[in-house]
Amino acid sequence: MSSENTFHGWAAVAKDKPLVWTELPLKNFDDDSVDMKVSHCGVCGSDIHTQNEDWGRSNFPCVTGHEIVGECTRVGKNVQHIKVGDRIGVGAQSGSCGECKQCKRGEENICQGPRTSTYNSHYPNGDKSFGGYADKWRGHQRFVFKIPDNMTNEVAATFFCAGVTTYSPLKRYGVNSSSKVGVIGIGGLGHFAVQWAKAMGAEVVALSSSDRKRDDAVELGCDHYVVTSRPEEVKPHMGTFTHILTTHVSNDFDWNMYFNMIDTNGYFIMVALPEAPLSGIPSMTLACRQIALVGSLIGSPAMIEDMLNFAAEHNVKPWLNKYSMKDCNEAIQAFKDGKPRYRIILEN
Amino acid sequence: MSSENTFHGWAAVAKDKPLVWTELPLKNFDDDSVDMKVSHCGVCGSDIHTQNEDWGRSNFPCVTGHEIVGECTRVGKNVQHIKVGDRIGVGAQSGSCGECKQCKRGEENICQGPRTSTYNSHYPNGDKSFGGYADKWRGHQRFVFKIPDNMTNEVAATFFCAGVTTYSPLKRYGVNSSSKVGVIGIGGLGHFAVQWAKAMGAEVVALSSSDRKRDDAVELGCDHYVVTSRPEEVKPHMGTFTHILTTHVSNDFDWNMYFNMIDTNGYFIMVALPEAPLSGIPSMTLACRQIALVGSLIGSPAMIEDMLNFAAEHNVKPWLNKYSMKDCNEAIQAFKDGKPRYRIILEN
Repeated sequence: MSSENTFHGWAAVAKDKPLVWTELPLKNFDDDSVDMKVSHCGVCGSDIHTQNEDWGRSNFPCVTGHEIVGECTRVGKNVQHIKVGDRIGVGAQSGSCGECKQCKRGEENICQGPRTSTYNSHYPNGDKSFGGYADKWRGHQRFVFKIPDNMTNEVAATFFCAGVTTYSPLKRYGVNSSSKVGVIGIGGLGHFAVQWAKAMGAEVVALSSSDRKRDDAVELGCDHYVVTSRPEEVKPHMGTFTHILTTHVSNDFDWNMYFNMIDTNGYFIMVALPEAPLSGIPSMTLACRQIALVGSLIGSPAMIEDMLNFAAEHNVKPWLNKYSMKDCNEAIQAFKDGKPRYRIILEN
Repeated sequence: MSSENTFHGWAAVAKDKPLVWTELPLKNFDDDSVDMKVSHCGVCGSDIHTQNEDWGRSNFPCVTGHEIVGECTRVGKNVQHIKVGDRIGVGAQSGSCGECKQCKRGEENICQGPRTSTYNSHYPNGDKSFGGYADKWRGHQRFVFKIPDNMTNEVAATFFCAGVTTYSPLKRYGVNSSSKVGVIGIGGLGHFAVQWAKAMGAEVVALSSSDRKRDDAVELGCDHYVVTSRPEEVKPHMGTFTHILTTHVSNDFDWNMYFNMIDTNGYFIMVALPEAPLSGIPSMTLACRQIALVGSLIGSPAMIEDMLNFAAEHNVKPWLNKYSMKDCNEAIQAFKDGKPRYRIILEN
């Protein structure tokens, strides 16, 4: 292998084993390819699930990481919107079929044909896809974005998954200055949701299981903080939310309470991806309050562009815990221990 | 009791007993009251559930029926939009608080304050409300509507519950000539849903468990009829519906199949009111296809007005099985036996 067509990355090699720094082949370079020298990569829950085979068999060796930013070092001859030297980023998706109606509508994130995830997946020619816990990345231009001039690489990285996953549904379901948004789960996703909703002009309330994150929530911009096990804190907000966004669904999730907190004709947005089917959904409350329970999956290329511009304009920034790329296994352990406040980023 | 302030109606007097023709008091007549000489009343599933106490204790004697039309015989001095001699109708709701934000937004159907159902309920002064299996009806002007000139009483009656229950969500979620609408359950509600969607310009498909209603569905306007247990019939429609509306949810409901039949970003509309919480909702499909699962409850006064005009303009008509009011118990038995094709109406 020539070094031009290989990279080094932290590869998961077996379930529940430490990642191993490994040399692996980049996909073939074609007319639509973009090469990146990785400067930063965020650590996402999906990475850990894939390393641990929580979502089914992983194709080891697997280099995870899908919040990848860095400098463009080479472009194929079809590439117009990116040039060598640009600061660029890529998220959880690196390919879509281009043929289905979703792709033709610019909704590549919900492409129904063959699609390429940024890691643990394949390109159409059969080459494996690899993520950003690495020194280099190569992929298709369609899913590579230029980072706005007034945004650092470090700030940009985690927008590409956690950012757009929360921005997209809030934007799609019309959050604005008349909205009141509840966020369940102040964490990697939730701390973005709070900031987006606030920047969209909404009143924002953190809905939490304990007081633990009260100060952080206020600093992030929450107007109120509610511990949902305390009826006296919940009561003033009953029936008032235009939108509630949840980043997780537990087995004892109190659907009825949350549906009753939403204003009639309001939205309950799930950005969680629980494996088990949902149960206990109170159909009478859904009907009598005319609630919409909606799912959402990352975001389209157009939504990513829109988000980057919005973030630059409104100075939305992740809260980051930075680790050197060489300390990747320590960073993963910190993630497993629930330490990030609120997103871990690896730096080359 | 003077006969001016009483009426005769078919009263449920105990669970699972035949209805009894009984003289009962009308509510007090006030400045907002409208009196009606009933010409027709539809028979709705809710009537049977209330007679049988399926939804909890009923306040016997209870006169059911909430698709009531007839001639206005008296109006209170505040009543402007109705005059004596007008042909009028009333649906499932006869009162709302007028004070909550839903009422102030014109969404009285989802009023969150004290509300009055047309039967088995109370007016604010404590008087019982009674429905339309009767010779007379009296209620509040806000929920009384003038029937369009080119629509007979008989045609109008069942619009007031079954009609608006299906019209309202199809209208609210934007069904138009670009839509493809699936209807699960060709019955009292479903046969309206098909006609509304068709009149809104959509392609319409009946989704049924057997071939039994194929001819009816085509006559109602369906473009296709799919028996959902036959994969070869389902397959061409996978991922193509902008909206699926269901009138019932069974225990073995195949949520995953229906969600996969809906186009991405499409709507699954529940007009059913199952008592049990929903289970088995496939969260991954909800997310990955960005489906909205939405509930809906009858319709607001504004929606009822809109529906009546739309029905008159597009010549939408229920399929009726007519019984004389005196044969009310026979009609109820026919309903229980699943005979209506597709809505039973009682005629004085």
